[in-house]
Amino acid sequence: MISCSSDKENRTTEVISPNKKVKVQFLLSATKQPSYTVRFKNETVIDTSKMSFDLQNALSLKGNFEILKTTTNAFNETWKMVWGEDEEVVNQYNSLKIELQETSTLKRKINIIFKVYDDGIGFRYEFPKQENLSEVVITDENTEFNLTGNHKTWWIPGDWDIYEYLYTTSPFSKINAFKDYIPGSHLGQTYIPENAVNTPVTMKTDKGLYLSFHEADLTDYAEMTLAVDTVNYNMKSELVGNAKGKKVIRKTPFETPWRTIQIAEKPGDLIESKLIVNLNEPNTVDDMSFFKPTKYVGIWWDMHIGTGNWDYAGENHSANTKYAKELIDFASENNIHGMLVEGWNIGWEQWWDKKAKKVHFDFVTPYPDYNLKEVVAYGKSKNVELIMHHETSADITLYEKQLDTAFALMKDLKIHAVKTGYVGSVIPEGEYHHGQFMVNHFQKVLEKGIENGVAINAHEPIKATGKRRTYPVAISREGIRGQEYNAWSEDGGNPPEHLTIVPFTRMLAGPIDYTPGIFNTSLKPYKENNQINTTLAHQLALYVVIYSPVQMVPDLIKNYKNNPAFQFIKDIGVDWKKTKVLDAEIGEFITVARQEKSTENWFIGGITDENARVVKVKLNFLVPNKTYTAKIYKDKLDSHYLHNPEVYEILEQDVNSKTILELNMAAGGGFAISLIPKN
Amino acid sequence: MISCSSDKENRTTEVISPNKKVKVQFLLSATKQPSYTVRFKNETVIDTSKMSFDLQNALSLKGNFEILKTTTNAFNETWKMVWGEDEEVVNQYNSLKIELQETSTLKRKINIIFKVYDDGIGFRYEFPKQENLSEVVITDENTEFNLTGNHKTWWIPGDWDIYEYLYTTSPFSKINAFKDYIPGSHLGQTYIPENAVNTPVTMKTDKGLYLSFHEADLTDYAEMTLAVDTVNYNMKSELVGNAKGKKVIRKTPFETPWRTIQIAEKPGDLIESKLIVNLNEPNTVDDMSFFKPTKYVGIWWDMHIGTGNWDYAGENHSANTKYAKELIDFASENNIHGMLVEGWNIGWEQWWDKKAKKVHFDFVTPYPDYNLKEVVAYGKSKNVELIMHHETSADITLYEKQLDTAFALMKDLKIHAVKTGYVGSVIPEGEYHHGQFMVNHFQKVLEKGIENGVAINAHEPIKATGKRRTYPVAISREGIRGQEYNAWSEDGGNPPEHLTIVPFTRMLAGPIDYTPGIFNTSLKPYKENNQINTTLAHQLALYVVIYSPVQMVPDLIKNYKNNPAFQFIKDIGVDWKKTKVLDAEIGEFITVARQEKSTENWFIGGITDENARVVKVKLNFLVPNKTYTAKIYKDKLDSHYLHNPEVYEILEQDVNSKTILELNMAAGGGFAISLIPKN
Repeated sequence: MISCSSDKENRTTEVISPNKKVKVQFLLSATKQPSYTVRFKNETVIDTSKMSFDLQNALSLKGNFEILKTTTNAFNETWKMVWGEDEEVVNQYNSLKIELQETSTLKRKINIIFKVYDDGIGFRYEFPKQENLSEVVITDENTEFNLTGNHKTWWIPGDWDIYEYLYTTSPFSKINAFKDYIPGSHLGQTYIPENAVNTPVTMKTDKGLYLSFHEADLTDYAEMTLAVDTVNYNMKSELVGNAKGKKVIRKTPFETPWRTIQIAEKPGDLIESKLIVNLNEPNTVDDMSFFKPTKYVGIWWDMHIGTGNWDYAGENHSANTKYAKELIDFASENNIHGMLVEGWNIGWEQWWDKKAKKVHFDFVTPYPDYNLKEVVAYGKSKNVELIMHHETSADITLYEKQLDTAFALMKDLKIHAVKTGYVGSVIPEGEYHHGQFMVNHFQKVLEKGIENGVAINAHEPIKATGKRRTYPVAISREGIRGQEYNAWSEDGGNPPEHLTIVPFTRMLAGPIDYTPGIFNTSLKPYKENNQINTTLAHQLALYVVIYSPVQMVPDLIKNYKNNPAFQFIKDIGVDWKKTKVLDAEIGEFITVARQEKSTENWFIGGITDENARVVKVKLNFLVPNKTYTAKIYKDKLDSHYLHNPEVYEILEQDVNSKTILELNMAAGGGFAISLIPKN
Repeated sequence: MISCSSDKENRTTEVISPNKKVKVQFLLSATKQPSYTVRFKNETVIDTSKMSFDLQNALSLKGNFEILKTTTNAFNETWKMVWGEDEEVVNQYNSLKIELQETSTLKRKINIIFKVYDDGIGFRYEFPKQENLSEVVITDENTEFNLTGNHKTWWIPGDWDIYEYLYTTSPFSKINAFKDYIPGSHLGQTYIPENAVNTPVTMKTDKGLYLSFHEADLTDYAEMTLAVDTVNYNMKSELVGNAKGKKVIRKTPFETPWRTIQIAEKPGDLIESKLIVNLNEPNTVDDMSFFKPTKYVGIWWDMHIGTGNWDYAGENHSANTKYAKELIDFASENNIHGMLVEGWNIGWEQWWDKKAKKVHFDFVTPYPDYNLKEVVAYGKSKNVELIMHHETSADITLYEKQLDTAFALMKDLKIHAVKTGYVGSVIPEGEYHHGQFMVNHFQKVLEKGIENGVAINAHEPIKATGKRRTYPVAISREGIRGQEYNAWSEDGGNPPEHLTIVPFTRMLAGPIDYTPGIFNTSLKPYKENNQINTTLAHQLALYVVIYSPVQMVPDLIKNYKNNPAFQFIKDIGVDWKKTKVLDAEIGEFITVARQEKSTENWFIGGITDENARVVKVKLNFLVPNKTYTAKIYKDKLDSHYLHNPEVYEILEQDVNSKTILELNMAAGGGFAISLIPKN
């Protein structure tokens, strides 16, 4: 590690990545306002972009700054993921810290730290402890990202309450967050105050460079959306606030999340980048042995296709002991070690409508037809562990009161994972899902998880910002327009291109609980007017393409039984030594290979959008001179996501590191491959 | 006129436009299949594209052809529009007729005629009378349009039943007609059998050339959609069929509609192009004096915002004598000479649900609260003519039985226009809105109109193909996602960019009954969650931008009264001597100027998408050395379609042909200008 401070006369205000390609320059404007530029291979990627904060009852932190001190640092470590896409992560960067002070009366101080990696940059603000800045209420953070062109952009609206949108592909100039905005929709859980996008937002420049903007280590702060100026190609941080207009309330000293820009020459490099986790602090959980990555079954899909119900008052209550045991049997026979049961506890009647609700949720009392302890014990006997479920309806007041008893029950029953849910508008009223209040709530739940040995899979969550490095209990989350939209009728479900965009946007933030693997893609006879807009082979491929340490196997048991394609789901790993994106174009197709951590097996998944295409898959990542049995599950020539989605073929052949496979994908199709060493 | 035939040895198979820029080449492939190419300024615009027909119970007309004869022709005329965007139309083209015969046993004949204009091309097939081809059932027409790149495309799905979609802007490779497809939606009126687009479909090439594909003179034939091959950038005609798989049933001799390609170097040239009407036959209606272009009021908006009802059984039945007279009073005070009343006749209870319906529509019996004769007479006394209304619920069997009595009533009452409606699935079952059966129905209604002196404004119509030249009773039509979508909640209404795309797509087909001019853009207190996604000034501009010889003034009377902006609607013309697109970029903004036919007044309208912008308007089209009073209705600096849509300012100044106005448009905004000569 090389660390150096510079004297006043000879200050360093530039910092360059280890491979010399990425360069950040800090500057003070004419009004002495902090600003920065980013260059990649000597081309400007972010033009002069200003930084400032507006505060409540105080002058803005905006201009009249002088540099007190600058410090540079070169850092290089390799750390191990407890679970993840890769076993080892290289964390190498050069950093520059700028310490600033106002020259005007208040003499307030703020520091800015840049970390420059080969795969992008992060910067954060530090508010040191000081006399004239102790209680800070931030009403606006104004961090600019001044783009250098009308980039092709993949974006969702900067909704303060929900992320469940299809990505729009458009020139930056055509971003319109209000395009599909209907106040009051999404179960009352939507609020878009201005033309902003949420992060990660990903772009491709005319020169073929890929950029993605996000944040890392979102802790005790409000989420950042990015307000867009579609005429000047500029973005500005727009923090999520609350009804009182407050965005962040803190006491100095504190620091903001990292503002991040991933930069890549190939789209796959965005996915292989570890920038977001690297910008988080190391693991603080000594013993994570209670959680093992797993596949899991459950009753979730029943509820979406209408063969079951969450609430006991309705017919076909799904959470009953008998069905749970059937699922456990099925799981234990098929190399699946988790089982999730929603709707098991009282309070589901009118669960989405907090005003009409008569019985509130509690998180310890099962419905009469569900014997929780019996199910847990039966699961244990079959090596299948229950995943607990907590739907809160976003009534945080209620849930936080019950957190201790709810988590104590899990500790007592040795349940080591919980899926939480936050459907609907937040209580207390005036708070939004993505504001500081909720960020802190999600942190509280993570800490409760660590205390009780419970991993958290949050739905309607705050977006991932790499905190899984520091808190590996944060195993997965939703925050995406998931598979369930295909079972709903409103807008035709997720189009085939959806999951060719998601890996380059939402997935850059962290693991996704997407629930792939629906075999009955026609949804007949349950949802006559709906369907899954992919082929069956595409569904298989998602177990490789979409990363999560917990992967659901959601379809009805009868749709898997006797279907030869189910072998792939049985075989597929869930924890990885190495991940490689073999080929991709955002919104068109992607091919990913992952090596299982506990074996020498590789798995490959490829998916395409609504266009059929042929791809070549080079197996040059295999161990040389070793033979593997490749089992290829792929579309047939007449497969098509609309009129022939469920036909596929299975090919088996010996392959080695010199093999190049040529595979056709149907419209909305894909392929999945398992590669098992022969000896 | 120069017409020449060529002998066998020296046949002409090329034809070039009068200005020499557009060139069509006809060729026979290796299998002697007819094909063609199109070049513009020596660059290939349409690469070798094949032509063939599949027939029922007969061999395809596909290969083994020889050329019997070719004929070229140079044509030049100027004709007058009865009503329209321009008083005089130049119709100048060079044509090439290729007479083909099979060399195989059947020796069937087909002719292909190309007309090449400066603004694009049209070609049609002639099936001559012949022994081996008399009764023809076409199961597929395979006319290819082989594109030369992945053009930026503005498209709607090739739905066989409805055109009411937002335009998607995407690369050609990303066209996916199924993207938002929900079988059973649109009141059961939607059917998309394959990945196809409807026409006009418009494109921009990488080199900045604009192309639009459509058809002209759709008569006794099925509509053409275009199936897309998104990998090879190819389109192929896909005719609309019926449940029996038949697409067109004809006897020779007959000819197909013209397949058209408009080619333009500026987007505005697409709009100024008269290709579509020029490819239709001259006017066949001797005396069109019964119809005069007009603005009209009505009760239509009441029904969409919920202040009124169509059916008598519901509360607030809108079609009542008292309200009709109020509207007549308002119209006659404000230079408006038409009034439309929907829901006046019996049968509106459950009108969209033909199965549940107990009382069928008839087209002569008013509800008890509506005195038709009294309303007509009161209107006449105030110089306001009633526009009749026929909603058929697409029950063609029922409507055709009543056509004679229905039109006789109008003739009797001297009503000279009718708005027809075709909501829901077609009866007889198995027919689709855009198939040959319905094309012939619409033709029948036009003929009934001519017979009885009634002009037709069809909603849920067959698309316009320029037949208004031959039958000027075809005054306007819908076939677009209209203003009413803004009053409905499902998907947020029409985004601001909608009407910056429509002029370059739907409007190339013909006049649009869009119903602009909503002043209460917030829709408060009627529709709290909806709004019009434009500013008020944008609404005014639409009276110039969107062409129709009948323009509705749809908002509630109270929203116009005492609003100074209403003066523009009072002043605006509806019939034009000259139209000029001053500046435009598809999907971003457009500025149009039109000169009124009966005065020397000019009107200018400009609209923008969701981006604010400043445009310069050069008035160099005004008569030199003449002074005009310009009244400019425009957005204020703080106008915005979302949070401040109804504020505007009116500026008045003297201008002449040397004046250049610089005008700001707000996000979703616009401006409207009247230019009145000073003396």
